[in-house]
Amino acid sequence: MASKEEIEKFMMADFPQSKCIVEAVGEQSATVRHRIGFDELRPGGTVSGPVLMTVADCALYVAILGEIGIVSLAVTTSLTINFMRKPSSTKDIIGKCTLLKIGKSLIVGEVSLYSEGDAKAVAHVVGTYSIPKSD
Amino acid sequence: MASKEEIEKFMMADFPQSKCIVEAVGEQSATVRHRIGFDELRPGGTVSGPVLMTVADCALYVAILGEIGIVSLAVTTSLTINFMRKPSSTKDIIGKCTLLKIGKSLIVGEVSLYSEGDAKAVAHVVGTYSIPKSD
Amino acid sequence: MASKEEIEKFMMADFPQSKCIVEAVGEQSATVRHRIGFDELRPGGTVSGPVLMTVADCALYVAILGEIGIVSLAVTTSLTINFMRKPSSTKDIIGKCTLLKIGKSLIVGEVSLYSEGDAKAVAHVVGTYSIPKSD
Amino acid sequence: MASKEEIEKFMMADFPQSKCIVEAVGEQSATVRHRIGFDELRPGGTVSGPVLMTVADCALYVAILGEIGIVSLAVTTSLTINFMRKPSSTKDIIGKCTLLKIGKSLIVGEVSLYSEGDAKAVAHVVGTYSIPKSD
Repeated sequence: MASKEEIEKFMMADFPQSKCIVEAVGEQSATVRHRIGFDELRPGGTVSGPVLMTVADCALYVAILGEIGIVSLAVTTSLTINFMRKPSSTKDIIGKCTLLKIGKSLIVGEVSLYSEGDAKAVAHVVGTYSIPKSD
Repeated sequence: MASKEEIEKFMMADFPQSKCIVEAVGEQSATVRHRIGFDELRPGGTVSGPVLMTVADCALYVAILGEIGIVSLAVTTSLTINFMRKPSSTKDIIGKCTLLKIGKSLIVGEVSLYSEGDAKAVAHVVGTYSIPKSD
Repeated sequence: MASKEEIEKFMMADFPQSKCIVEAVGEQSATVRHRIGFDELRPGGTVSGPVLMTVADCALYVAILGEIGIVSLAVTTSLTINFMRKPSSTKDIIGKCTLLKIGKSLIVGEVSLYSEGDAKAVAHVVGTYSIPKSD
Repeated sequence: MASKEEIEKFMMADFPQSKCIVEAVGEQSATVRHRIGFDELRPGGTVSGPVLMTVADCALYVAILGEIGIVSLAVTTSLTINFMRKPSSTKDIIGKCTLLKIGKSLIVGEVSLYSEGDAKAVAHVVGTYSIPKSD
């Protein structure tokens, strides 16, 4: 297992490009935040789909690190996203992940994505990570 | 229908943040390119998953614009990506989209993503776009 | 909206082949049950994948009928299933659906599938139904 | 690798419930057929979604057996289906699978499903199988 502080330190060192902020982690779940600005928007004043996928992927990764410890080479093997509502162009995106299965080689989780403060999710993601074998 | 030049002009005007380059469009398909640099990489020297999703989403969008004309408010409703091989950290990502169904309200397409010059796809995407009703 | 009794009656009349039993419906959710016998099993003493998909599809359909009333021509447009644990060969499969988005033309829901009495889901489904326009 | 005859024999012995007929297998692909009768239909005179999923799952499994030999405990880990056109109620369903990735532990393939004789697919599937470790 890894704590919020360990994960933040690891993310800053190994994923300096990431704009995801770890809000909470533990008990097979995680919450992350992504600020929304010009780079994240698209026509019609909404958050771009790839930004939502980025937040979901990050939430899933953080939940996994929280559960199995710092494993930098865990990789996403599949991800399905359903876009459900138009995100706000002025609110942060919040991603809340719950792990559904923690296997030896595959971990499955789901993520609900929200415009901060809204009760209804803007998108829903199910994703699978593959965990490299330890020697 | 929209030509390569019309789509490029539209993308530059409406999606100035996009790094996707339109390579070809027509006959219910499209090819796009995305340069790979520091911002696109992650630990282990590979291209990040969200960048691959971005390229897939762009390829799908360009193929749709090529088929039905410039419709800025078309939105992705769902997208499934399977990551299959480690992309090269030094080659552009190429996305090749083929539309599978062109309905009045939903368009479905698949995208194969490649590290330029490699014959085997690094990822495969199936996505659906919703087309706004014209009045 | 349709009640449990109305849905059961409709299912028996219009889907006489279905083996799904409606257990509960309402508040944008539904629970269904499917008995498991020889026809539903596969090598290794487990429930076949298509049976799990059948139960998920049925749970989603029942939840939708409960929400919008009897609409026989609603059709599944996409469905993603993740198989997570080996189902029991001797227990009924229970499908619990929660609707995530109820739009005018698309409804999205998720379904967790269980071997009866087990707390951990054997599979997880996200699916989308298209609702025909009423005239 | 396994031949068409070996796979047919295995399917008959281990999956006696299956109605899938192996039409062709080899070169990382497979074609299967499923007869359509009363049991496979639903209101509106079309083939039920779960039947289409069954055919896709079978096509994927046959392609995998053709590639890696008879491995009865290979299991589906995930499957995404997009329904695109209304299948004919009077024609067999044909499933054509192409494997996209053959890894040591995961195999990814796609399947196009057709009403026999129609050029346009009624549904498209991407699925992943997990291959048990050999000792």
